[in-house]
Amino acid sequence: MSKPAYPLVNSKRLWQRHLDMARIGATPGGGVHRLALTPEDIEAHLLLVKWAGVHGFSTDLDAIGNMFIRRAGSDSSLAPVASGSHTDTQPLGGRFDGITGVLAAFEALETIHEAGIETRHPLETIIWNNEEGSRFIPACMGSAVYTGVEKLSDMLAREDKSGVTMGACVDALRQALPQAGSRELGAPIANFIETHIEQGIELETNGNTIGAVTGMQGYRRFQVHVIGEDAHSGTTPRARRKDAFAAASDMTHALRERLWDEDDEIRYTIGRFEVLPGGISVVPGRVNFCIDLRHHDEGILNDLGDAVPRVCKAHAGPCEIEITEFLRLPPMSFPEAMIAGVEKAARRNGFPHQRIYSYAGHDARHVARLCPAGMIFIPCWKGISHNESERAEPGDIAAAAQLITELLIDQAV
Amino acid sequence: MSKPAYPLVNSKRLWQRHLDMARIGATPGGGVHRLALTPEDIEAHLLLVKWAGVHGFSTDLDAIGNMFIRRAGSDSSLAPVASGSHTDTQPLGGRFDGITGVLAAFEALETIHEAGIETRHPLETIIWNNEEGSRFIPACMGSAVYTGVEKLSDMLAREDKSGVTMGACVDALRQALPQAGSRELGAPIANFIETHIEQGIELETNGNTIGAVTGMQGYRRFQVHVIGEDAHSGTTPRARRKDAFAAASDMTHALRERLWDEDDEIRYTIGRFEVLPGGISVVPGRVNFCIDLRHHDEGILNDLGDAVPRVCKAHAGPCEIEITEFLRLPPMSFPEAMIAGVEKAARRNGFPHQRIYSYAGHDARHVARLCPAGMIFIPCWKGISHNESERAEPGDIAAAAQLITELLIDQAV
Repeated sequence: MSKPAYPLVNSKRLWQRHLDMARIGATPGGGVHRLALTPEDIEAHLLLVKWAGVHGFSTDLDAIGNMFIRRAGSDSSLAPVASGSHTDTQPLGGRFDGITGVLAAFEALETIHEAGIETRHPLETIIWNNEEGSRFIPACMGSAVYTGVEKLSDMLAREDKSGVTMGACVDALRQALPQAGSRELGAPIANFIETHIEQGIELETNGNTIGAVTGMQGYRRFQVHVIGEDAHSGTTPRARRKDAFAAASDMTHALRERLWDEDDEIRYTIGRFEVLPGGISVVPGRVNFCIDLRHHDEGILNDLGDAVPRVCKAHAGPCEIEITEFLRLPPMSFPEAMIAGVEKAARRNGFPHQRIYSYAGHDARHVARLCPAGMIFIPCWKGISHNESERAEPGDIAAAAQLITELLIDQAV
Repeated sequence: MSKPAYPLVNSKRLWQRHLDMARIGATPGGGVHRLALTPEDIEAHLLLVKWAGVHGFSTDLDAIGNMFIRRAGSDSSLAPVASGSHTDTQPLGGRFDGITGVLAAFEALETIHEAGIETRHPLETIIWNNEEGSRFIPACMGSAVYTGVEKLSDMLAREDKSGVTMGACVDALRQALPQAGSRELGAPIANFIETHIEQGIELETNGNTIGAVTGMQGYRRFQVHVIGEDAHSGTTPRARRKDAFAAASDMTHALRERLWDEDDEIRYTIGRFEVLPGGISVVPGRVNFCIDLRHHDEGILNDLGDAVPRVCKAHAGPCEIEITEFLRLPPMSFPEAMIAGVEKAARRNGFPHQRIYSYAGHDARHVARLCPAGMIFIPCWKGISHNESERAEPGDIAAAAQLITELLIDQAV
């Protein structure tokens, strides 16, 4: 079967879809607040299904809430060639993180469909559930369960801050989509390629439109509970306090020293830090915080991560401490053929490109366990992400969608 | 007019009233969570009004939501002789802080009433609104507005975390009590005496039942906003971060060093500390925290408090900082006559007693601007307060109510 000519994506439509999606969970600050499987996130799923319906694409859901929009192929025995990302955002997040990968994938499906190109493999746009991990721990939950990294029953039992389980949220998604079919967890995928904003400044600095992603740094995440004793701030002298804030503060301070490197390669972040009960005049008896630690070198990451519980315990003072490592993933690499395929398509289109390493985690990490997987990065204004000011350019997004279109055709025809 | 014999309080009833009140906002941990003018706090007000109705006592409300239960005197031109405290609690607070002073005052009114003792002055039990300041800043709001320390319109406009104003809460209280009369802010009070648990270990250590409170330490409270920039925790190197958590953490660490004293007399507390947006993988762009600083020496308190903004600014790193001192009160002393009056009544009853200094803030501080005011402390198990485990003994509570009864008679007959 000879390759058809590559059709061109509709960049205007693709940008309009971004604007439409950005309305769902829009914040006054110009960003998007659309946590996993909230009513807003479910609305984003429904909007995509509505667009898919126009072309007669079908929709499947799996047991962990991943959604698969499918354009049928001519050989129904073949596994789908897929692209996609996620619709959920960080709290007060941006308009591109995740959704760009979904819409670029969907634009590729539409473009191929409108060009009347028949493929042997089915084509799919995948929305992986709960990539951000800000409502339910851990991040990349949907792809992790699909690929067997996490256990379904454990993940369905996870609760958000209000005690709502992921299981209840997946049920809500299913009820919102009564027409959706079922997809088995771990069902074969032929190929997967994910578009994402870089969330760094390398492409912007180098003036490149396309990054062929080579791999991803590893991470280790810890949940720390510091248990002291609530006390009156006026009457309780320092010597009689079990001040969970003071202890947690000593821990995070000591960690900053231990996790400091000249080269600025270590990523150490405290993004979630709760002080309870939270009264101005109450010595706090409880602090819960999360440590996000990342590095591209597996040996260094192992050493640093192993030090975390030791450092915390050494600075607990009069408080008790519980520390759990709830996520540990080594650095990984994508297959050379996928990286080279992105480069070749970029060259063919005359898009300035480079190889690039990912300092962020993405679903493609897990999917790479199941099938050849790869990623395309596009520039992200000033590297600002997980922020309402996040920005990507329509032309760059269209370039990525064009590559996805061509790669899907190459792999599926 | 000759003094009547002092009647004895009903300690069993007084303890039962504590149990009844502890049910309103009861927590699984055995404490009480009853923030100012929440439905639970309003329910506590209504319960007291119900008990008051049995004796035909009247109820007034003022414009800031203070409530006055009155037993009429024979000379309606005279100002009331009053006692009371507050019904609100800290988040996950205890069963005695505040409510004991209200119930001891009310027990005194009932005891005097049942003994058929006529007084020239009216007698009052006062519930000062929002003493804790944990839902609405500042603490001791009701007594502060009543005595002219704070402005009514400013305080009514204060919002809780959900944006509900104090004004709306006062309206809700008034609607719940359509039969209540109106009390002018600042209307004269002849005398005020407040019972409270010590919230320290001095009485317990010395084996004393009664503390005649001599004065109260001063405090300065600051609200600090640290403004950085939300960023992706995986992709953003340390050098490009404006990490509000790291900056706030440096500030609180430096403050701990600056506010450390050998004698352990300085009270420095961070009880409220919010990190936003709160995603595990987001370098936080915002931290809001409160500093509670107290000392019994005015000169030292002035010096330390003046250092706070300097220390914070010096450790802001790449972040912006806004710092506001929202409360500043010097140390104060109660009139000698009130202190001696408590001692005399304790001696008469054979209660072991001592003079004691208050390291906590109380409404009596503000009321002392308007009329002779004083306080009675009773022991508090292990000094534990602002905690669900807070405990006081029925016998000690009854002792305080007995003294209040006698002091009200002395002052009002």
